[in-house]
Amino acid sequence: MLSELKPPSRILMGPGPSDVHPHVLKAMATPLVGHLDPSFLEIMNETMQLMRIVFETENRLTVAMSGTGSAGMETVFVNLVEPGDKVMIGVNGLFGTRMVDVAERCGAEVVQVKGEWGDIIYPEQIEEALKAHPDTVIVAVVHAETSTGVLQPLQEIADIVHQYGALLLVDAVTSLGGIHVSIDKVGIDACYSGTQKCISAPPGLSPVTFNERALEKMARRKSKVQSWYLDLSMIQNYWGKERFYHHTAPISMVYALREALRIIVNDGLEETIERHWRYGKILQNGIEAMGLKLHVEEGKRLPELTSIVIPEGVDDLAVRKNLLNQYGIEIGGGLGELKGKIWRVGLMGYSCQLRNVVLFLSAFEEVLREQGYKAPKGVIESVVRPDNLMFTN
Amino acid sequence: MLSELKPPSRILMGPGPSDVHPHVLKAMATPLVGHLDPSFLEIMNETMQLMRIVFETENRLTVAMSGTGSAGMETVFVNLVEPGDKVMIGVNGLFGTRMVDVAERCGAEVVQVKGEWGDIIYPEQIEEALKAHPDTVIVAVVHAETSTGVLQPLQEIADIVHQYGALLLVDAVTSLGGIHVSIDKVGIDACYSGTQKCISAPPGLSPVTFNERALEKMARRKSKVQSWYLDLSMIQNYWGKERFYHHTAPISMVYALREALRIIVNDGLEETIERHWRYGKILQNGIEAMGLKLHVEEGKRLPELTSIVIPEGVDDLAVRKNLLNQYGIEIGGGLGELKGKIWRVGLMGYSCQLRNVVLFLSAFEEVLREQGYKAPKGVIESVVRPDNLMFTN
Repeated sequence: MLSELKPPSRILMGPGPSDVHPHVLKAMATPLVGHLDPSFLEIMNETMQLMRIVFETENRLTVAMSGTGSAGMETVFVNLVEPGDKVMIGVNGLFGTRMVDVAERCGAEVVQVKGEWGDIIYPEQIEEALKAHPDTVIVAVVHAETSTGVLQPLQEIADIVHQYGALLLVDAVTSLGGIHVSIDKVGIDACYSGTQKCISAPPGLSPVTFNERALEKMARRKSKVQSWYLDLSMIQNYWGKERFYHHTAPISMVYALREALRIIVNDGLEETIERHWRYGKILQNGIEAMGLKLHVEEGKRLPELTSIVIPEGVDDLAVRKNLLNQYGIEIGGGLGELKGKIWRVGLMGYSCQLRNVVLFLSAFEEVLREQGYKAPKGVIESVVRPDNLMFTN
Repeated sequence: MLSELKPPSRILMGPGPSDVHPHVLKAMATPLVGHLDPSFLEIMNETMQLMRIVFETENRLTVAMSGTGSAGMETVFVNLVEPGDKVMIGVNGLFGTRMVDVAERCGAEVVQVKGEWGDIIYPEQIEEALKAHPDTVIVAVVHAETSTGVLQPLQEIADIVHQYGALLLVDAVTSLGGIHVSIDKVGIDACYSGTQKCISAPPGLSPVTFNERALEKMARRKSKVQSWYLDLSMIQNYWGKERFYHHTAPISMVYALREALRIIVNDGLEETIERHWRYGKILQNGIEAMGLKLHVEEGKRLPELTSIVIPEGVDDLAVRKNLLNQYGIEIGGGLGELKGKIWRVGLMGYSCQLRNVVLFLSAFEEVLREQGYKAPKGVIESVVRPDNLMFTN
């Protein structure tokens, strides 16, 4: 007979999932109502409204897809792309690479605009590529590249893309709730995210939003969307006024998303984003004070995900294993071409607290010392100042 | 400011979701570990083993897809069908109809074998259709048609399908954990289910299983699977020994599925199935004792989902609304061509308890009386006998 579930206690400081707020865990344990119950339809309405606040949009079509962030990625491509469409994708990390694969499976003719894994995609690259491919209908970039820790600036690219009459599609899986996504202000036409990063709910839903330009492209489709499960022409009738049954929504996950978004909105979106910047910066200063190198240069770094260059002679796996086994701290390793070259440390949502920064820096110092790497003394004193000492709950 | 989540208390006796066991709700509230944490990989292994027990299979490829039952449906079709494949589908309800739509979106040439909404698909129909279409590569039927309450016998159909060299694909969304699915004994080649019916976990995952014949068909594919998110060639490397990162699994939902399956296996699969038959039968006897007609004839009825013909002159919506508002009991209405013609009453998983049967019959009697329909006296005494009085917890 199998025993009851008893997973070990962790502090999740990897590239996601992040720690889930206790109130959100409580929401997960709420007994269910039916997915067509009038009270659930009200909860869906509230969740849509909260998503709009965090996405910073008025978009009517702002819903949570019943899958994880990658299902959100697939949602935007299957609904917007028709076979033969030319789609331009910025590829400077794993998630750009994944978008290429997903778009090609939709029959897109993909044009890759390549960047270094650790650098941004430059607006001039997009402009040049659009000059060479003026028949491009969609341009897609990753706002927060989880595989590298790069923050992709969007405004200039958005303006160029619209000059060329294309749609801008953005991956905001690791940015939503941590930094400004500003859908309407920037002019992002379609965007998807996940629940398990800065939103700090468990993985399982993907918030997506589409503006009128994107809806027009969908309305002009000649072919059916290749995925029944992700077909927004039906899903918007379930989340919309009609409430047509499509599939059974993951009710508990909607409960969790509503609660997680409610916490962000009650704390204030500005304050939440400011918190990510504040503690992200302290962490990054601390890492540099330890004499370590950050993989991404200043000014291009995400606050919620920091990539650290693994110093020579230090065993990648041993460091991660010791952090996990001795301190219960999870951090991430490198992916793809950065495997074995960087560590990725997340400060997302509920995990983004000063106490986690201080614990991590101290534990990291110890674990590195075991590996023969000695950091200068006084790292924490050098980065934590009285004005930072605020406990977030 | 939005208030904390406070959904009303319900007894879920519709076509799903069903009530979730308190231990499963508790599992949902468990703090998360990372999706690549060694402890989570162990939990995945345990969950796979539990799924095999409930599916009654040795199939290596038995995993939980990160979506609801409809994502499971899409999984089997996108992975097994290649454009131009001839796929035969039994259509005697909404979910057969949905399979046609999904298969066509995969480029299948679909042959529909039609049945009444409320009757089974007869083996002779499949045999005749296969004679006319011997180049059929897949035959798909729904084991438990949630839209009608029909239990589809599978063994004869499986034998015929295999005689013709095709694969048998089965929708077990509403059957798994409630009645025997018996993958290996029957010879089902591919099967998908959901968590929110007789498994009694929240909606959000879809257990699927594929045998070697199905794996061979996948291995022979000439084209990529059109869905990245549901591509089993990658997903089996995440659930398998390799543990390659594919997408972030819905960790809390896996916790819940493990706990829900653990309860079934600890109670005993036989005992759990027997419980569904026992209380399903009592409910159905009670409905008939009330002078009402069941939509499906004796011998073809599912125990876990009972469809009741709405008596003339009784207001469908008023009855459901009063059950919900006065008693907190959710039942389902008819779908598709049965809209307004039947009610659907579920006794699935944790909802399948004698106390729910007795409460429902009593409340139903009252609500019908308000609508002018008077049932004979003594219904409950006539169907509940001492040997049925077992409290299940």
